[in-house]
Amino acid sequence: MELLMERIRQEGLILSDTVLKVDSFLNHQVDTQLALEIGREFARLFGDKSVTKVLTIEASGIQFAMATGIALNVPFIYAKKKKAVTLSEKVYSAPVYSFTRQETYQVSVSQKYLSPGDKVLIIDDFLATGAALAGLVDIVRESGAELVGVGCVIEKSFQEGRSLLEKKGVLVHSLARIASMSPGEIHFVQDHRLCHQGQGRM
Amino acid sequence: MELLMERIRQEGLILSDTVLKVDSFLNHQVDTQLALEIGREFARLFGDKSVTKVLTIEASGIQFAMATGIALNVPFIYAKKKKAVTLSEKVYSAPVYSFTRQETYQVSVSQKYLSPGDKVLIIDDFLATGAALAGLVDIVRESGAELVGVGCVIEKSFQEGRSLLEKKGVLVHSLARIASMSPGEIHFVQDHRLCHQGQGRM
Repeated sequence: MELLMERIRQEGLILSDTVLKVDSFLNHQVDTQLALEIGREFARLFGDKSVTKVLTIEASGIQFAMATGIALNVPFIYAKKKKAVTLSEKVYSAPVYSFTRQETYQVSVSQKYLSPGDKVLIIDDFLATGAALAGLVDIVRESGAELVGVGCVIEKSFQEGRSLLEKKGVLVHSLARIASMSPGEIHFVQDHRLCHQGQGRM
Repeated sequence: MELLMERIRQEGLILSDTVLKVDSFLNHQVDTQLALEIGREFARLFGDKSVTKVLTIEASGIQFAMATGIALNVPFIYAKKKKAVTLSEKVYSAPVYSFTRQETYQVSVSQKYLSPGDKVLIIDDFLATGAALAGLVDIVRESGAELVGVGCVIEKSFQEGRSLLEKKGVLVHSLARIASMSPGEIHFVQDHRLCHQGQGRM
């Protein structure tokens, strides 16, 4: 998605070889029009899959799940990281290790909102280690719903997340795939196969 | 907002005199079309204030800040509850005591995204004790930006949140104001003044 890659080039702050800060337009301050465009792009990429629900994880996936839900005209669900006081019923859950915070937390989704008739599209802001997304994949499969695929806004292609998900048999589309980066420099993956198929300008 | 109150009557689960669960359509599974309507209603209520930014707090305010930002065509910011690894620059912050979790946490917003030229509308899903919203009000004032008002989706009018915010001189609009509730029964505040002014069906 050229619009997104251009914005990352202009406004992304590369703090190290692995840390990219996009909080001026994606995940602290959010450009609502760009977020809507991102949702439309995911709807285009997964639009032939009869998606019934979008699933993400709090907090920074919410704006993109919302935008994708708007574009597909379906509800979205956000998995919770802590079991809330008002989340007393039965849940599907999976443990997720956060490398950023160096702790394991539980992600959970109420069993009421995923069922075997659903076709679920998972959306998140970043694909890096893939740990959180793998947890969501396990939750969808535990529910008996059909997993349509995973859509990520930014993929750090030099980390193992995509490979982890593909080994689980998951279709992954990312809108900006970073091949490598270092302060002042960023390179995106040129995915000619996808370009030829007209499925994305990735 | 009659559409919202009707949905609460139909789908809200009242667990006690103080706990209302709306996670089938507002804050776990989210009805994207209803969220968009909520954003349009806030845009209508605050549309004459030249809002430049919408501010909320992660996680459950995000979908409504997003919807309001879409309707007003402005960006939104979500305050963070923990200082993130990538949030290394200077922040405005305020301590917030959570009665639900019985702990004090810090909410923070990067100083880069609020400045004296901004006109800020604060949006959240619930107004109960008002603690989190009061923290956001303090952050906006510390930044020198103008606070336009606070918009809440659901207000528990039997708790002290509105009074706390009004004592700080803040304009508050809530789309559904609960006067009282108990399992199986819910009463909304009938705000005739607002009805007569045609500013809302609250």
